[in-house]
Amino acid sequence: MTGFVGVDAMVRWVSTHGAERLMSEMVSYLEADYRRWTSFDKVERMASHTPFGVIELMPVSDPDTYAFKYVNGHPFNPGRGYQTVTAFGVLADVHNGYPVFLSEMTLLTALRTAATSAMVARHLARPDARTMAMIGAGSQAEFQALAFRGVLGVDRLRVYDVDPAATAKLVRNLAPMGFDIVVCDSAAEAARGADIVTTCTADKASATVLHDEDVASGMHINAIGGDCPGKTELDPAILSRGPVFVEYTPQTRIEGEIQRVAADFPVTEFWEVLAGSREGRTSAEQVTVFDSVGFAIEDFSALRFLRDSVAGTDLAQQIDLVAAPDDPKDLFGMVGAPVPAL
Amino acid sequence: MTGFVGVDAMVRWVSTHGAERLMSEMVSYLEADYRRWTSFDKVERMASHTPFGVIELMPVSDPDTYAFKYVNGHPFNPGRGYQTVTAFGVLADVHNGYPVFLSEMTLLTALRTAATSAMVARHLARPDARTMAMIGAGSQAEFQALAFRGVLGVDRLRVYDVDPAATAKLVRNLAPMGFDIVVCDSAAEAARGADIVTTCTADKASATVLHDEDVASGMHINAIGGDCPGKTELDPAILSRGPVFVEYTPQTRIEGEIQRVAADFPVTEFWEVLAGSREGRTSAEQVTVFDSVGFAIEDFSALRFLRDSVAGTDLAQQIDLVAAPDDPKDLFGMVGAPVPAL
Repeated sequence: MTGFVGVDAMVRWVSTHGAERLMSEMVSYLEADYRRWTSFDKVERMASHTPFGVIELMPVSDPDTYAFKYVNGHPFNPGRGYQTVTAFGVLADVHNGYPVFLSEMTLLTALRTAATSAMVARHLARPDARTMAMIGAGSQAEFQALAFRGVLGVDRLRVYDVDPAATAKLVRNLAPMGFDIVVCDSAAEAARGADIVTTCTADKASATVLHDEDVASGMHINAIGGDCPGKTELDPAILSRGPVFVEYTPQTRIEGEIQRVAADFPVTEFWEVLAGSREGRTSAEQVTVFDSVGFAIEDFSALRFLRDSVAGTDLAQQIDLVAAPDDPKDLFGMVGAPVPAL
Repeated sequence: MTGFVGVDAMVRWVSTHGAERLMSEMVSYLEADYRRWTSFDKVERMASHTPFGVIELMPVSDPDTYAFKYVNGHPFNPGRGYQTVTAFGVLADVHNGYPVFLSEMTLLTALRTAATSAMVARHLARPDARTMAMIGAGSQAEFQALAFRGVLGVDRLRVYDVDPAATAKLVRNLAPMGFDIVVCDSAAEAARGADIVTTCTADKASATVLHDEDVASGMHINAIGGDCPGKTELDPAILSRGPVFVEYTPQTRIEGEIQRVAADFPVTEFWEVLAGSREGRTSAEQVTVFDSVGFAIEDFSALRFLRDSVAGTDLAQQIDLVAAPDDPKDLFGMVGAPVPAL
């Protein structure tokens, strides 16, 4: 049998523990895996692009455990009653190739994306950061806000979305949780006075949701939504304002903000900062940019954390995904050779 | 909710309808998809190799439906009580990216691999073929035999396996089903007098389980087991005996028997034979070789057939794999913002 966490179990897991606490704990799994970055077998994700959106498979493996995630990104979905992103993922044992754990990952991806942003910002943002601008108030927004509060203590939000209903939803969800929220009329207004700017929009276009003139010295830019060929969010001039940090360079060159600049544009892989081999922020005035596209190791960490967290509870269910014949060479025996009656 | 066929349902489906009949019906789905080959978005599968074996993701898409399969290949597994190959697969809607159908595919892969072999042999073997040599009597063997009987009328088997217990298992499973089976002491003996030779062994090595001198004029070679870098079965000289047919050339160059010959070695993609744009067998004396590695379109066809076949029956279950918030932009609303008590 294969361990299974479905949507119902995932909702109970997050509701019971609280997203803020879970993401803070998940950061320790993420950091542990980022620190042993070189022990993973890594590859760019495999994307199937259509006019509707993209479907991706994101595999990664260490010597013991293989993981992959199925995830889609369909920017027109919300207008048709569907979510932009849905996902599920699997852990498998490398020694025999058997899948051992299957989980919904629509919610888990939201948690891991925000936890990754917060992990990176803890090392790159100014230590005194309290105020975050949020450009885009869609599905990912509340998770970002809670992860940044749990991990960095950010509790002041300046929010802008082209869709006022999305902004209202964010305020409705987060105001009761103790955030100080300012609703803004433009991205430029949101960025004003912010220590951190998170861009998280869904439009599949070479958009510029944040302009160079809106970036002030000392800011940390957490650029989440530019994550596909032809889908970016930042004025390319911003990339020259300070060091740019990425997850996995070969994938980010294809999918990230840096797809709009030269193929040899210098970047730092974030794991090197954690490992101490490259510098992170070097002054309070510096602008730092995290050009995030999402990488498979983050899903590996999230699945590992989830599996450990639900082990032995009623949230860990099982499904019969793997056939197990008594004799491993007699698969046919499972479906029964009909014997003629004597 | 996502449609789900687990192991129990799969076993009931195959036991109820019979593997031979299901594979014969599956061939019409395979041929329909092979005939519209150019309408698919195709790519080599993504393989993660370790000393234990390989884990692969095999995606493919047409304009409406995306499919992928997770499959492993671990040659040492049977000696440790595990199967060599396990698999599961998914169908998704391209228009919104939602996964709509999940199935076990250990058994389904066995069915689709044999159905594909039989589909190809129906077009390439001599029409009067009655006798098949089977080199390798592992998990795939009975399925091959039944598919070839259902689709071509082959009912005489000459069987050899290095493991006598595997051969005994095959005889135990198939003799009651009306096959005329001759157990042989070597691959050469098995091939003697056969119209078709199926090689289906699991050893991960550049093995030669069939030698050139054992190949007689008029034979069709159905080479199944050579399907990974460094894993082959045929004496390379056999590849020059007659035309070599493949599924998807870029993948077969990496994984198939033709990995041992020049990168420009001429091959014919089988779909072209079906489409009438390339010749298949042109004489009764010709040797034909199907260098099969397994391609994602075959899984697409098999999943499509399974989904249609179980629709509306109690074999089609459902699992909660995709979160469905009332407001697609309010994913966070699903996990509940805890509101402070007044």
